[in-house]
This record gives sequence, C-alpha cells and structure tokens, in this order.
Amino acid sequence: MSRIILHNYFRSSTSYRVRIALALKGLDYDYVAHHLRHGENRKPEFLAINPQGLVPALVWEDGTVLAQSLAIMEFLEEIAPEPALLPADALGRARVRMICQMIGCDIHPINNLRVLNALRSRYGADDAEIGDWFRHWVNETFQPLEKILEDSSDTGRFCHGDTPGMADICLVAQVANNARYNVDMTPYPVISRIRDVCMEMAAFADAAPAQQPDAE
Amino acid sequence: MSRIILHNYFRSSTSYRVRIALALKGLDYDYVAHHLRHGENRKPEFLAINPQGLVPALVWEDGTVLAQSLAIMEFLEEIAPEPALLPADALGRARVRMICQMIGCDIHPINNLRVLNALRSRYGADDAEIGDWFRHWVNETFQPLEKILEDSSDTGRFCHGDTPGMADICLVAQVANNARYNVDMTPYPVISRIRDVCMEMAAFADAAPAQQPDAE
Repeated sequence: MSRIILHNYFRSSTSYRVRIALALKGLDYDYVAHHLRHGENRKPEFLAINPQGLVPALVWEDGTVLAQSLAIMEFLEEIAPEPALLPADALGRARVRMICQMIGCDIHPINNLRVLNALRSRYGADDAEIGDWFRHWVNETFQPLEKILEDSSDTGRFCHGDTPGMADICLVAQVANNARYNVDMTPYPVISRIRDVCMEMAAFADAAPAQQPDAE
Repeated sequence: MSRIILHNYFRSSTSYRVRIALALKGLDYDYVAHHLRHGENRKPEFLAINPQGLVPALVWEDGTVLAQSLAIMEFLEEIAPEPALLPADALGRARVRMICQMIGCDIHPINNLRVLNALRSRYGADDAEIGDWFRHWVNETFQPLEKILEDSSDTGRFCHGDTPGMADICLVAQVANNARYNVDMTPYPVISRIRDVCMEMAAFADAAPAQQPDAE
C-alpha cells in the first residue's frame, strides 16, 4: 500500500470537491498538479493515467486510478464511512445526490474550460459573451436549487441537515467558480448562507484554490 | 402507498436511463409524458413538481419527488437491490460510476436540447454546426471510454462483468441519442458490441424511445 495520489489543478472545481472530501475524511494524499490552461493534462504521461485527460484523478493505495469527482466521493464514502457525507436514509441520499448532480451535471460541464474554449474557437465568443454564458447556466440551476433548499425541512445548517456532506461540497466549489465570473449571489441567500457556514470549517477553507501549491 | 409515477419524454436519454432501470428492477410505474420541444416541462404545474423543470422526475410511492437520473438510479438500487446494477466491490462500483459520469456529466449535458438551443439563439448555429458540436463531445468521451473498456479485464459481456448495470444503461441511452446526429460508431467496436448485447434484453429494448406512448 502506498499513499493516495491526487492529480489535480488548483482552480478546477471538480478537483476542489475531492480535496474537501479527502480533508473531511481525514485522508492524507500527495498532490500532483497539472496545469489545465497549459494543456498539461493532454500529455501522454497523464493520458496513460487517465485516458480522459481530465482532473481530478485519484490513484488509490493499490494503484487503481479513479476518475470523475462524484464517483471518487462515493468511493471515499464507502471505504471511509465516517464522518458520513451522505444521509442515513435512502430518500435523503437521493436528495443529496440530486443536488450534487444539479451542479455536477447541469452547471459545471457546460461551463467547463474546454466548452468555453470551444465557444471562443467556433463562434468567436469574447470575454463578455463567455461571462454571460457562464452566468446563464449557473442561474438556470441556482434558481431552482435555492427554491429546493428554501422550501425543504430537510435543509439545516447545511444542504441536508446539520452536518456537511457531498451536496455542500459541490455547492462550495461551484460558488468559488462563480466568483471568477462575477455571478450576482444576491438572489441566493440560502446557498450563500450554507457556503459561508462551510467556509468556516478547515476542511473547506484549506482545500480552496488559493491555498494549493500550484495556485497563481 | 400509490403507484410510482415517472415524468418523462420519449426522446430524453436521461428518461430512457430511468425507464431501463425500472424495467430491470421489475418496478411498474405510470408514464406521464411532457413534450420538451413544446416546452411543456416549463409549465407551472410541472415546475411545482420539479422546480428544475427537467425530466425525468420520479414520484416515489410516498409522494417524494426525485430528480436527476443518476440519483434516481442509485435510489432504485438501494430500495430494490436485486438484480444489482452496481458491482459488489467498492472499486468496481467506482469504475461503473466513473463510466456513468463520463457519459452523464461530460457528454449529455453539453449536448442537451437546451444547450443546443442556446447555440442556435446566441450564435446562429445551423443544423450542420449543431451536428458537429454534438459529435465532437461524444467523440471526446467515447474515445477514452472505448479505451477504458478495451483495456480492462473488468469488461465482460457488459461494461463491468457479465450482468447489465448502470454503466450499460447510460451507454445504451447515449448510443440511441448518437443515432439522431449520425455519430460514426465504427471507431467504437467495444461500445457497439455492449450496446447490441443490451438491446437483446427486453428491459432495454422496451424502454427505447420509439416504444413509448408519446413517441412520434
């Protein structure tokens, strides 16, 4: 058994998710940075590790490479169940996974660097248009997410109850990304409150992009 | 306890995923169609059910509304464990979830109807450009997926072993979508073989878009 390796990039919000999850679980790891904007993730050495050429990729103790941040978090939850990042009941778990996927499927991939680059190269999108695209998809999902969090008695200090979990992890990483594109958070008081509560915890704060060794 | 209701649309590949999972689990449900191209999912009556205004949404026996297809499949796996749609071991589950998310995060949302409509309205994309966009993101992920399936001894008759599971469900629904945009499947013999094996099973074939009551 060797140490866990996390291939990541400070600014990647999916890498940020996994860093928070590892911190909450108390799992140590070696940090290997790949500079996405310089295309380091497309180098043959990294493609040999993760054929998809995306971060994060986690190399488990036995050498198995795990990719996709939500799958990695589910794995960590299974091999290190405490503290739990999912509720104890099936309907609660479905609600938390729903929130994760609202962010993880319906916001992040559409606003990912490679898609923004495609808008620039295919349609000549400028910085203003890229910002508008980014904010549009955030708002399309944050509006119903705010409503879901506001209307439900399942919402506590965190997205689900009074302990942090996978939904909070996805929320915090997305809000961090939003700041780079000046998303107005005024319409989202519940999301903002949960984000602030999370950021008081070392596991969330220490995993933030600016705290990473490759931060610029 | 009342019957399960599935809010869906015949052509939606995420709805297709849930229809296959329900069929594999042997769970009956009432089919409620919402015509996405006519915007029926944006009506107040449906937004009261699912604030995100997306299909699929599954109303469970107790009235709880579950959204997001991957979260719904995880829920079905928990409340109806047999036949299992995830492997028994944690690393195997991580691999299956990784494949699901390669498709469910990195292909489907970027090629979703609402994103294609945004390309038309914002950048005047025509049918040829839409097709090129669609195929680009499929190929970006199908190339590494084919490699992952080809290189691994975990791959059997299906994506993982010799029984169908969540990864196969996502794969089949994506391949069905691909056909509408003329994706060349020649470079993907393993994906194609697994798809064909799945389609021999009634649970996959009967859930296909063309078999649904709202099919056009």
